Amino acid sequence: MKIVEKDLHISSKSRNQMIDITGQVDAAVSQSGIVDGDAIVYCPHTTAAITINENADPSVPHDILLTLSEIIPHHRPGYRHGEGNSDAHCKSSLVGCSEQILIKDGQLNLGTWQGVFFCEFDGPRSRTFFVQVRGE
Amino acid sequence: MKIVEKDLHISSKSRNQMIDITGQVDAAVSQSGIVDGDAIVYCPHTTAAITINENADPSVPHDILLTLSEIIPHHRPGYRHGEGNSDAHCKSSLVGCSEQILIKDGQLNLGTWQGVFFCEFDGPRSRTFFVQVRGE
Amino acid sequence: MKIVEKDLHISSKSRNQMIDITGQVDAAVSQSGIVDGDAIVYCPHTTAAITINENADPSVPHDILLTLSEIIPHHRPGYRHGEGNSDAHCKSSLVGCSEQILIKDGQLNLGTWQGVFFCEFDGPRSRTFFVQVRGE
Repeated sequence: MKIVEKDLHISSKSRNQMIDITGQVDAAVSQSGIVDGDAIVYCPHTTAAITINENADPSVPHDILLTLSEIIPHHRPGYRHGEGNSDAHCKSSLVGCSEQILIKDGQLNLGTWQGVFFCEFDGPRSRTFFVQVRGE
Repeated sequence: MKIVEKDLHISSKSRNQMIDITGQVDAAVSQSGIVDGDAIVYCPHTTAAITINENADPSVPHDILLTLSEIIPHHRPGYRHGEGNSDAHCKSSLVGCSEQILIKDGQLNLGTWQGVFFCEFDGPRSRTFFVQVRGE
Repeated sequence: MKIVEKDLHISSKSRNQMIDITGQVDAAVSQSGIVDGDAIVYCPHTTAAITINENADPSVPHDILLTLSEIIPHHRPGYRHGEGNSDAHCKSSLVGCSEQILIKDGQLNLGTWQGVFFCEFDGPRSRTFFVQVRGE
């Protein structure tokens, strides 16, 4: 088995934002030379997340971010964390900090409408994510 | 390392439904001949998800679907996506489009009460999911 | 590829609790002798979960548990499951029963503020979780 890892970088522009990183993950897979296996996309931050959803219509990320902010308001009576970003920590644990995508014939085996998103919940910030490609 | 992948199919009967796919995943693991490793169950759709939860009492999937629909109503002021299924996209990102299960002695190493579910949030539809088994 | 698995144990003290298991996962990785690959942390229970979030300030786990209990109340009209722990099953599926962490130079490649938590939603109980370390 071959294991290839790459650290990638993005900059978010607002407090809540879903950034399409499909192209960056795809390039990491192509560069790895691995044709059969999987890729882990991992976010090392505790106020951000990784998700897979539709990247054709920008209304979909909008509606996901709207829903998350309705469920998890920025300020809630009872929050104890002093940095004012408890909502971002909660969103991170609900959405999850990693995704795994299968690789077939040297390419990400995503569904027709699927893209990979870095979810910023406490921006704007400079952020890092890891892509580990494993297989043969 | 050996990698074996299988595409599997189901049909959902209602808009929101959790379908027990444990048997199909289990069969894919048995057929792979892999005795030690893991299985990724991956949903290539953006209005569906994969989860692991209790499959003994059908009340549990009922209560999970009820809770998701209370948290994320079908219609919400502010949704922009024109297809009327923004709720399904949100549920997909919250539940997540894949799960990984360890394999021990050639079998899924699930907990006593755990089963694997395909979660339909925008049915009824014909759906596909992938099972990738990896190991030795 | 080398695959090493370990079953680990904890005891929760309250109904809802996030227990920092980073040290136990880290020790399993060190003992495996694997320097490059990944670790899966898997919870075989249907009323508990695994998440990655900040483990420096105990206010963060507090605020995550508070948020989950506000979103998913213990009792909700319409719940059918007779054991009175439907909320715990829902939390388990939303947070997710496993996490994967990359391994670099023989160590968990977590972000600066990240720790791994076992999330108890129906305690107090004795609980088990699995760590599978894979790589070279």
